[in-house]
Amino acid sequence: MSWEQVNIKFEGLPRGFNLITDTILDKIPQIKSFRIGLLNIFLKHTSASLSINENACSDVRQDLESYFNKFVPENEPYYRHTLEGSDDMPAHIKSSILGSSLSVPISSGRLNLGTWQGIFLCEHRSLPHTRTLTATINGEKY
Amino acid sequence: MSWEQVNIKFEGLPRGFNLITDTILDKIPQIKSFRIGLLNIFLKHTSASLSINENACSDVRQDLESYFNKFVPENEPYYRHTLEGSDDMPAHIKSSILGSSLSVPISSGRLNLGTWQGIFLCEHRSLPHTRTLTATINGEKY
Amino acid sequence: MSWEQVNIKFEGLPRGFNLITDTILDKIPQIKSFRIGLLNIFLKHTSASLSINENACSDVRQDLESYFNKFVPENEPYYRHTLEGSDDMPAHIKSSILGSSLSVPISSGRLNLGTWQGIFLCEHRSLPHTRTLTATINGEKY
Repeated sequence: MSWEQVNIKFEGLPRGFNLITDTILDKIPQIKSFRIGLLNIFLKHTSASLSINENACSDVRQDLESYFNKFVPENEPYYRHTLEGSDDMPAHIKSSILGSSLSVPISSGRLNLGTWQGIFLCEHRSLPHTRTLTATINGEKY
Repeated sequence: MSWEQVNIKFEGLPRGFNLITDTILDKIPQIKSFRIGLLNIFLKHTSASLSINENACSDVRQDLESYFNKFVPENEPYYRHTLEGSDDMPAHIKSSILGSSLSVPISSGRLNLGTWQGIFLCEHRSLPHTRTLTATINGEKY
Repeated sequence: MSWEQVNIKFEGLPRGFNLITDTILDKIPQIKSFRIGLLNIFLKHTSASLSINENACSDVRQDLESYFNKFVPENEPYYRHTLEGSDDMPAHIKSSILGSSLSVPISSGRLNLGTWQGIFLCEHRSLPHTRTLTATINGEKY
């Protein structure tokens, strides 16, 4: 039974739904040594989020961004938390809706995602930010 | 300390919020052998999702379906990902909002759900699909 | 490799987004004895939820409550589950959107939240309720 924990930093990803599966696999080569287990990735921020969705067609990522911009609007008259810019409070709301952590099974040394599943870091602020996630693996090594 | 991993296949569940608690318990009898632990269930698709909600009154499941159909509408003018049908992009959005995995505690050989909690497989496409989930248990056996 | 499981009861929290990080840390002192691990907290209810968001400015908590009241409205004409009051079905929907469990990494005896992250118990019913969560820790002790 083994534990591994790794921090991964992302610098200045653009606003929107960014596919980060390859970065995750690249920065956590330890996944390959686990026969069975779980990977938890936890984003340490409140105006960005993590999600899993379609990895092939970039239109899906664009449409997700458009949908969330429409249904979590800026400048709602009841917002009080407005000092950090009109994109800030919507960013907090999107973060609670989408969530800041994911747990993905590991099977035979591979992240057991479905064929069309990719991991997204969803950046909800307009200006570039540095984002850190903590990846924790627990499982049985070979 | 033990790990178990099981794949469960669902064939052609109807669109909507389907209660699958009994199937989960039936297909993962290993739960009974764990004194303490966690069950992770991970759905390997991007147009369906997993959620926990009220297990008794089927009206709740119907109202959830109605709500999400209204607030994640088809045919939004800004959707670009439209080739696979008007229910496809809304299905991806619902999947990100509801999420594709759940972690539930195991206590004394039982899934430690609240009295009114059931596990739902939320099918967001109109035509029947085959859906696979990977269940991973980690814990201390008796 | 060790497991700990603790139930925490909350009595009559007001409707809205309640910061409970300090209660969690207070009721689960075992966190300090883990070098590395994960804390899962699981809320055993279907009309309340758990979320992580900004811990400093209470305006964010108020704006989250306002947003969800507007975008998950009461008295939608298609709601069938109305017997338990007009706040009941919206509470179920909010619970599925926000989710009923969280997994947070433990690093060097501390809950590894970001600087601005706090844990919220989101009470979606208007009348006071008793809410129970099951906290499960798994990890390597010192």
